[in-house]
Amino acid sequence: MSLRSPMSRKLRLGLVGGGRGGYIGAVHRTAATLDGHWEVVAGALSRNIDVCRASAADWGIPSERAYPDFRAMIAAEPARPDAIDAVAICTTNETHFEIAAACLNAGFHVMCEKPLTLDPTEAWALVDLARTHNAVFAVGHCYSGYPMIRQARAMIARGELGKIRSVVTEYASQYGVEQNYTMPWLDDPERSGPSGVVAGTGTHALHLTEFVTGLRVVELSADLTALVPGHVLEDHATMHLRFDGGARGMLWNTSVALGNENGLSIRVYGETGGLHWRQENPTVLEHFPLKSARRTLTCGGFDTDAASGDWTRLPYGHPEGYQEAYANLYVEFGQAILNGTRSGHLFPTVEDGARGVDFVHAALKSSGQNAAFVPMPAAAKK
Amino acid sequence: MSLRSPMSRKLRLGLVGGGRGGYIGAVHRTAATLDGHWEVVAGALSRNIDVCRASAADWGIPSERAYPDFRAMIAAEPARPDAIDAVAICTTNETHFEIAAACLNAGFHVMCEKPLTLDPTEAWALVDLARTHNAVFAVGHCYSGYPMIRQARAMIARGELGKIRSVVTEYASQYGVEQNYTMPWLDDPERSGPSGVVAGTGTHALHLTEFVTGLRVVELSADLTALVPGHVLEDHATMHLRFDGGARGMLWNTSVALGNENGLSIRVYGETGGLHWRQENPTVLEHFPLKSARRTLTCGGFDTDAASGDWTRLPYGHPEGYQEAYANLYVEFGQAILNGTRSGHLFPTVEDGARGVDFVHAALKSSGQNAAFVPMPAAAKK
Amino acid sequence: MSLRSPMSRKLRLGLVGGGRGGYIGAVHRTAATLDGHWEVVAGALSRNIDVCRASAADWGIPSERAYPDFRAMIAAEPARPDAIDAVAICTTNETHFEIAAACLNAGFHVMCEKPLTLDPTEAWALVDLARTHNAVFAVGHCYSGYPMIRQARAMIARGELGKIRSVVTEYASQYGVEQNYTMPWLDDPERSGPSGVVAGTGTHALHLTEFVTGLRVVELSADLTALVPGHVLEDHATMHLRFDGGARGMLWNTSVALGNENGLSIRVYGETGGLHWRQENPTVLEHFPLKSARRTLTCGGFDTDAASGDWTRLPYGHPEGYQEAYANLYVEFGQAILNGTRSGHLFPTVEDGARGVDFVHAALKSSGQNAAFVPMPAAAKK
Amino acid sequence: MSLRSPMSRKLRLGLVGGGRGGYIGAVHRTAATLDGHWEVVAGALSRNIDVCRASAADWGIPSERAYPDFRAMIAAEPARPDAIDAVAICTTNETHFEIAAACLNAGFHVMCEKPLTLDPTEAWALVDLARTHNAVFAVGHCYSGYPMIRQARAMIARGELGKIRSVVTEYASQYGVEQNYTMPWLDDPERSGPSGVVAGTGTHALHLTEFVTGLRVVELSADLTALVPGHVLEDHATMHLRFDGGARGMLWNTSVALGNENGLSIRVYGETGGLHWRQENPTVLEHFPLKSARRTLTCGGFDTDAASGDWTRLPYGHPEGYQEAYANLYVEFGQAILNGTRSGHLFPTVEDGARGVDFVHAALKSSGQNAAFVPMPAAAKK
Repeated sequence: MSLRSPMSRKLRLGLVGGGRGGYIGAVHRTAATLDGHWEVVAGALSRNIDVCRASAADWGIPSERAYPDFRAMIAAEPARPDAIDAVAICTTNETHFEIAAACLNAGFHVMCEKPLTLDPTEAWALVDLARTHNAVFAVGHCYSGYPMIRQARAMIARGELGKIRSVVTEYASQYGVEQNYTMPWLDDPERSGPSGVVAGTGTHALHLTEFVTGLRVVELSADLTALVPGHVLEDHATMHLRFDGGARGMLWNTSVALGNENGLSIRVYGETGGLHWRQENPTVLEHFPLKSARRTLTCGGFDTDAASGDWTRLPYGHPEGYQEAYANLYVEFGQAILNGTRSGHLFPTVEDGARGVDFVHAALKSSGQNAAFVPMPAAAKK
Repeated sequence: MSLRSPMSRKLRLGLVGGGRGGYIGAVHRTAATLDGHWEVVAGALSRNIDVCRASAADWGIPSERAYPDFRAMIAAEPARPDAIDAVAICTTNETHFEIAAACLNAGFHVMCEKPLTLDPTEAWALVDLARTHNAVFAVGHCYSGYPMIRQARAMIARGELGKIRSVVTEYASQYGVEQNYTMPWLDDPERSGPSGVVAGTGTHALHLTEFVTGLRVVELSADLTALVPGHVLEDHATMHLRFDGGARGMLWNTSVALGNENGLSIRVYGETGGLHWRQENPTVLEHFPLKSARRTLTCGGFDTDAASGDWTRLPYGHPEGYQEAYANLYVEFGQAILNGTRSGHLFPTVEDGARGVDFVHAALKSSGQNAAFVPMPAAAKK
Repeated sequence: MSLRSPMSRKLRLGLVGGGRGGYIGAVHRTAATLDGHWEVVAGALSRNIDVCRASAADWGIPSERAYPDFRAMIAAEPARPDAIDAVAICTTNETHFEIAAACLNAGFHVMCEKPLTLDPTEAWALVDLARTHNAVFAVGHCYSGYPMIRQARAMIARGELGKIRSVVTEYASQYGVEQNYTMPWLDDPERSGPSGVVAGTGTHALHLTEFVTGLRVVELSADLTALVPGHVLEDHATMHLRFDGGARGMLWNTSVALGNENGLSIRVYGETGGLHWRQENPTVLEHFPLKSARRTLTCGGFDTDAASGDWTRLPYGHPEGYQEAYANLYVEFGQAILNGTRSGHLFPTVEDGARGVDFVHAALKSSGQNAAFVPMPAAAKK
Repeated sequence: MSLRSPMSRKLRLGLVGGGRGGYIGAVHRTAATLDGHWEVVAGALSRNIDVCRASAADWGIPSERAYPDFRAMIAAEPARPDAIDAVAICTTNETHFEIAAACLNAGFHVMCEKPLTLDPTEAWALVDLARTHNAVFAVGHCYSGYPMIRQARAMIARGELGKIRSVVTEYASQYGVEQNYTMPWLDDPERSGPSGVVAGTGTHALHLTEFVTGLRVVELSADLTALVPGHVLEDHATMHLRFDGGARGMLWNTSVALGNENGLSIRVYGETGGLHWRQENPTVLEHFPLKSARRTLTCGGFDTDAASGDWTRLPYGHPEGYQEAYANLYVEFGQAILNGTRSGHLFPTVEDGARGVDFVHAALKSSGQNAAFVPMPAAAKK
């Protein structure tokens, strides 16, 4: 599969949340429609019906499909000849479970923002529900859509780095200092659940780590704390990671690292090579082959292959970014829906989302035991 | 104006050229539709009708609006209630004049790839024609759509660098070595005209230089040559630039600099500061204030303002790229059409395109005189 | 004090170890003599007397002062009118204690490579002995000699970053993969003691962390392992760090990260700013002021001050490196000897060396308890 | 030859100029003595005898060898059993010729700062004089001493880049804005001669260009101007370069580019590869092999060889800088003196110095003809 694989028809998306005032709804709209495979035709874009209608107008959603809430949308849409195929859930964390479950039960496919749910029981219930309904359920771990991340994954899978020894992942931003004023719910346990930054961005880091390396974290030691006075939820976490097969790793996850704009990076070291990728310059993948000069692989550039090329739109030297990465997930999500199988696709699934929730809870548990090692549950078979 | 300014209706675009096998058509389609203001509904996408139809199908263009050539398109469209508003011209250089003139005469607005035409007489004829028809005519100098380029322009316009002293612009790529095999017309005088790399990318560099600095080149000395055996058109140019007001500059423009993927950059130095921007990491603008530490301005980041923020979709740390830059031009192009004026907009106009053709011919003339200084014609009033 | 402070006379140094075949002896010779304050006049440069004599000849040491071992040197030198002032100890780890103790007892000042000793008891015995003899005892944590490290330290001490919240230090190299073949003793417990990479480079990281931040690690959790088959001593460590005052941190320390040449860096984040320094581009210090654009401070450059300028020899843009950093320690070491006090100096002392040994043992203890947090002993008053 | 080649005895240097208040004298002292092959034992360090004596005391020069002027030094030294071998000339430009000629006539070898003289006649007279006296005469084009510059030179000489097509050299600093207040003679024709920045740093750029590429400039077009109000000598130059064999190039040379600290870089592009080196991060050499990923070569690192390794003191990851580069020239200068031949050495010679003066005058001539191309004299056979 590639972003150039033909699709038999155009798909229709409904959005929950994401109206004016935020940016994540616009990200989903842009990502879904970027390659021409999706159109956004319905939405319950805000709890505030005026905002919902205005946002719908902004995006060309007909007013009759600007629904007051998700229940109205999933009640009304199935009767339409041009009903939505899937729902994208862009609401705050505490609402994901209820909305996702309802959408699945109504027969829709789902693209849900992370963290999937507040607790593992709910998360795995969604896994079961998606299987029951044979639904395609994607989770918004969008960084796995970057071409050079897929290049890294393929190189490791092919053994170009040899056995992996060490992995260092960082998701260290400053939103906890800069943006909590505009997104106060990120530090509100009622809306974000029991975890702050680990739920917010640590789950991305865990997914990226396992996605790129093909390894699974089997135990972890997490030291969580709230460093900014007044913060209720943790804003800083350091973790020792131990992987199946013996590799070791480290995760640094915070929202209070001034100067780190988004601050996601991954470094992997094996027997015969290393790799380094930084999200803020995403078209570059540094490669450190054993006893050879460092190489800089670039999106669409020499010595890369279909692993990245299949997910790249432009020639080298013409930067693609975050929206294109997210769009890659929507291409795959659409292909999986039309083909009736997610087999052969790399987009993050509901199982990945549930694993993220497991991870949050393992980190909380470890931290509650003064950073003692705790096991991570086994990863689900997909 | 900003990319978030509301637009009174969705606009309709027809494409000429750009079908399967190239990438520039896809760029226009993606850029036009990215923000939801345009839809691509018609096209004469290839001289080969099968390619045209297949490409149309790829992009959801109805088969009856997949025209065999541009003449058929501009003949048929006006009669439709949902006629296209504008035509995007993505064909090879030698065809631009005829197509653009016909589109203007048929009452359409035009977005044309660069170089605008092969010779200045044709170029300025298009300027006149656009004025006669009161048409909005944009030229694809897409790099001026990057937010940090607009930030740079605003800083200079506000005097933050003081009087400008020196400008160094580079457009040094390797397509002449790597890609001529797939784009052989780039070295074919029949299709590209009398200039190779200067017409191909040097015109971008000239536009960017004048756009960012607000200065005009008044004379130039150009040393052009074909360095790769077999090349017919120049693949390497160095230029001394002299600007109105006394600033000096240099332009390096080549297609044979191995390792330079796209290789566009600009550096500007004034009395009280300097700036440096590189297209391959476009979210960054380096700022060198007089007798102060260097600063790194980033897209959406601190110490930037609406000059970039109005053309940025995502928070800092979430990279946007080439397509988003091009999309900014389409937003402005659409706004100008709907508002009936291009006043207040920054998109490159037909006058800018004609100035690029003047520049190509000045460079050719200087080079023919062993790089003697020759005048650049005065820039047109817009 | 600065490297330009006058010194009342030239000082004389004797070296133990460091003969041909290694590079650390040459580093000490070059660093000591770089600024003209020291001459190297005696040495017990190798256990092999022929190597000792040849190395002495290389460096202009008179043959009668090329001693067969350190005992001969400290026995013979005091009788000379031009006796050495100090001894630099460049031997393998297991010998440091005996040599240093003997030098102190013979009345010499000491510059000793790290780790200071193999166990804390010996280390603190050297602290006592140095105090008893009123000797100046420096330890080779040379990275603290870099000007921009001192700039960082001063900025933090002045409160420019506000209260420190988070510190991330890395010393991640590849010598365990590349160089163990040439320095096999690094993985030999008989010669290196119970710790591998933590003793080898982790002690540098700990010293730099505390030097720059002014904070002290009060407890740590360390996960140590040997990742390379055949390694006896740990080659990979991750640590959670907790500091006095509540800051948290992370340390990554390995010798098996392919592509990391030396791989020492430190990042510090406070309430009002952050800093980032990488040893491999040591003239640069990135500064992240709260809600402002990032700044790049450079050696000798704007917005720096005497904290770095006092330890910089050249104007900005003229890079200084590792040897100049080490030379800064020798300048201070000499000044302290001549002035009879180390007060006012920043060079790493015997107490810092002993703290490094405490750190190694705390890390080993934590790792032996499955990475449970263990306390770090309080830092000694100097 | 390498910096590790044994030398049969220690050499003695006398300095002219370079006393307290400047930095270039300290550079020569440090560079000469860094590797233990030279000692600085005499000096006429300032026109002001008090400064001369104080500077001599700083550097351990005996007071009787602190001479009031160079004439006194070259008169007195030959009679001493420990007479100096060579003189380093660190005075302002207008004095070089007289001092160098006198030193040669007195039988000394010479290391002279650039530009060698104010006019070509004098420069070539020194070439003749050096030959007559069979003296070793080095010129301070110190950037050719950097290991990675020598690596670049060797790679090109071996044909790793194929036939060279294009060269871009920059020496763009800000000293004309920042430092003219402290070094006013740089803009004083009485002391600096008819050229400002081209003599001051352009000569370095020309030397580096020809040294690295092995090509010779055969004609050039130079556009010189004084951009800063009040400047008498040019502070900005752009040049078209044409090389023997057909390569083309560009040189940008200014002292008014704010933010450029020293600003020396070179890029070379051939048929099968490209290279990029920046003096401010001198341990790195970027390599762009044809149709392969970019490689980063580092000092002492993988895929480098003796071309750089012979001039590197430390393992990879331990930065060396400007002083070490200059020291490499002093090692070679000493070896040439002791071996009685400069054959096999790469240090810049009096012929290189004279070529620099030819270059300055060619640039002035071209600029006086509105940047018409003018020939560069043929390079001298060495």
